[in-house]
Amino acid sequence: MSAEQIDHEARLVEDDHQSLKLWLRLLTCSSLVENNIRESLRREFNTTLPRFDFMAQLQREPDGLVMGSLSKRMMVSGGNVSGIATQLVKDGLISRDSLKNDRRTFVVKLTAKGLKTFNKMAARHEEWVIETIGPLGNDNIEQLTKLLGELKRTTLAAQSESNK
Amino acid sequence: MSAEQIDHEARLVEDDHQSLKLWLRLLTCSSLVENNIRESLRREFNTTLPRFDFMAQLQREPDGLVMGSLSKRMMVSGGNVSGIATQLVKDGLISRDSLKNDRRTFVVKLTAKGLKTFNKMAARHEEWVIETIGPLGNDNIEQLTKLLGELKRTTLAAQSESNK
Repeated sequence: MSAEQIDHEARLVEDDHQSLKLWLRLLTCSSLVENNIRESLRREFNTTLPRFDFMAQLQREPDGLVMGSLSKRMMVSGGNVSGIATQLVKDGLISRDSLKNDRRTFVVKLTAKGLKTFNKMAARHEEWVIETIGPLGNDNIEQLTKLLGELKRTTLAAQSESNK
Repeated sequence: MSAEQIDHEARLVEDDHQSLKLWLRLLTCSSLVENNIRESLRREFNTTLPRFDFMAQLQREPDGLVMGSLSKRMMVSGGNVSGIATQLVKDGLISRDSLKNDRRTFVVKLTAKGLKTFNKMAARHEEWVIETIGPLGNDNIEQLTKLLGELKRTTLAAQSESNK
């Protein structure tokens, strides 16, 4: 084996390792920030991240959302969407109605109380995120946002490639 | 209100927005890569990410792990750890034994078949990560890894601060 071949292999292994290292670090960061937010939601509002996420999706849609399209929009996994809906209805934070001619299709919507509660949580949520991420400094935040934008494009491209 | 005050407020709002934007983008990237991996695990190995994560934790501990410490190490949420264990035992991929003098403490360990299966999945997992992240290019990957290292430190510091 020539020295060039050895170099090539060494570089490949090193590059591979870098992609995997980046992915594990990305997952770690995302879990760490998420856990901070989960813990704060529990402590200050006695609620969960999937419940907050559920309400956040509805806050963007004042006319309500069909349950199926809501589950697709949720950003966090691990929540049972119909279980969350039942709980939020019980707490008076959302309304849930089935269609007149299709009783299996449900539309959920924030109530006035739900919107007020969500706005309070969203304001604190933003503060927690700033407390957690802000110390990174504006330059780092800007650069990281830009690079993650590249990663987002790359990942979406890889996805559509593998769906071909 | 002086022009300076207005500027200050405008900057503050802009900075706040940047932290939140970064967090949502981080969550999006992490979900996108994770979904690629979930989908590939399902397609090629008919398995789930929590199952893969469960086995990955055991692969690092040839002597086995107590169930409680295993759940703490898992990187993905949303999996019922004892449910996963039952399934993996049924498939012959792990062994699960209780202690002689404390039947509520369980130790789980990869079987030979489990290790062989895991190694196959891990090799493919690395390839999927490289396919997804590699196109970002070495310079971007290196820079992103470094910046996420900073974010990790910042987040851990914010966490220990709020636990005081």
